Amino acid sequence: MKACKLFRAGDRPVLVDEDAALTPLCSGDEREDRQFGKGLHKEIAALQEMLYAEHQRKVLLVLQGVDCAGKDGTVHQLFRKINPMGLRPVRFDVPTVAETARDFLWRVHLQVPRKGEIAVFNRSHYEDVLHPIVYDRIDGPEAGCRYAQIRDFERTLAESGTTIVKVFLHISKDEQRRRLQDRIDDPEKHWKFDPEDLKHREKWSEYHAAYEKAIAETDAAHAPWYIVPADSKPHRDIAVAALLAETMRGMSLAFPAGDPKLAKLRVK
Amino acid sequence: MKACKLFRAGDRPVLVDEDAALTPLCSGDEREDRQFGKGLHKEIAALQEMLYAEHQRKVLLVLQGVDCAGKDGTVHQLFRKINPMGLRPVRFDVPTVAETARDFLWRVHLQVPRKGEIAVFNRSHYEDVLHPIVYDRIDGPEAGCRYAQIRDFERTLAESGTTIVKVFLHISKDEQRRRLQDRIDDPEKHWKFDPEDLKHREKWSEYHAAYEKAIAETDAAHAPWYIVPADSKPHRDIAVAALLAETMRGMSLAFPAGDPKLAKLRVK
Repeated sequence: MKACKLFRAGDRPVLVDEDAALTPLCSGDEREDRQFGKGLHKEIAALQEMLYAEHQRKVLLVLQGVDCAGKDGTVHQLFRKINPMGLRPVRFDVPTVAETARDFLWRVHLQVPRKGEIAVFNRSHYEDVLHPIVYDRIDGPEAGCRYAQIRDFERTLAESGTTIVKVFLHISKDEQRRRLQDRIDDPEKHWKFDPEDLKHREKWSEYHAAYEKAIAETDAAHAPWYIVPADSKPHRDIAVAALLAETMRGMSLAFPAGDPKLAKLRVK
Repeated sequence: MKACKLFRAGDRPVLVDEDAALTPLCSGDEREDRQFGKGLHKEIAALQEMLYAEHQRKVLLVLQGVDCAGKDGTVHQLFRKINPMGLRPVRFDVPTVAETARDFLWRVHLQVPRKGEIAVFNRSHYEDVLHPIVYDRIDGPEAGCRYAQIRDFERTLAESGTTIVKVFLHISKDEQRRRLQDRIDDPEKHWKFDPEDLKHREKWSEYHAAYEKAIAETDAAHAPWYIVPADSKPHRDIAVAALLAETMRGMSLAFPAGDPKLAKLRVK
């Protein structure tokens, strides 16, 4: 089954822990899966070269998920074969003073992909609805207003030639515990550990309710949300690669036609 | 011999076509060379992870060279193993109106690496001395002024924790002819071909004189120039990887020390 159909969130997403462990795109045979993933990475690189050559449209991949969901790891795997010159990897950290002095979409807009680029957002404007809702810093009407602003923003991007793919990396609470504990147990990984992560973890159900709502409010044909089971890293990587490859296949990319005037040109 | 010593330009660089074909870092055995390159790519990825974990210093790789010298290809090979989240690939195209309305370093400064990042500049501020000199758009005193501004700018970056590596990819006029002709002969590569390239090619010796001067004027211990023979793509890739790996090895990177307070923490 096509990944785009399989993982499409739709307008009534339900995030339950059990689903995080599913591995519908894995065959069970490790070697076979690795080959499948490898093929997808090569295909993504080939599609990106055409996107780059065409120099008209853009691709935006939004990666969201709770702490330890595997956003960094996904980016690392997904673009193994790509030429980085056509990739715009963007991380949205805690906003700076200059950023909070503007609307929440300002810093995001500055980073949208250029013609020919794939941009990958590691966290995104969705953080600006999720956190404030979970920590009661905005009320319902304000949240509704931000969803509408996000919808408008993404529609503008789509209308100007941006193909959007939004992925929620779905891990279970148990898997998050294992990954956090792993970071704690290995002193070499302490730099990855942020005590704040434990605080957010206490709000697990609030976060997931906020995600369900945010996904429902902002899923659109031109900006679809996908929920990818991500307890298994191999499955996560294959699934996101399949989503991106399928989406880009659908763009009918091709190298620009050759210029007949060049046919007889000899370089001296 | 260490690549950093072998290719260091120094303050009296001479660019002659014959040198472009040298392959001092290749063994002659293709498989052996591939393994060597692979090892360097992995090492660069590992060093970058520590740079990223440390989150203090930065690395800036400047790639220059005539058209077809292989800047894009170098970037593609060099970062095969890296996590793109710690990489900032930057291309400097023809400046926009907003960019030419400022000094030539303005747009460059906006793109310098953040803490923990490796930035790679595919073309750079050097274009703003090379082209104007070759096409007589600035005179000697103005060129001298720009060299000084570049020296000051790079010193500022170095003083704020940026390790700088500047590479001139050196190809011969014959090799450029072959590569341009190749782009012309393959309609699928026409998008890479810019008729302007032929115009620049006519100014081959002027460009190389301008490069010799620019390199001599801006080579510094904290911002060294390297001249990499690049007629052979495998040699070019190994040489640039060796330069970057050696340079980063010299930074004594390490994962931050673990936090003893975390030792007994159990995630619930």
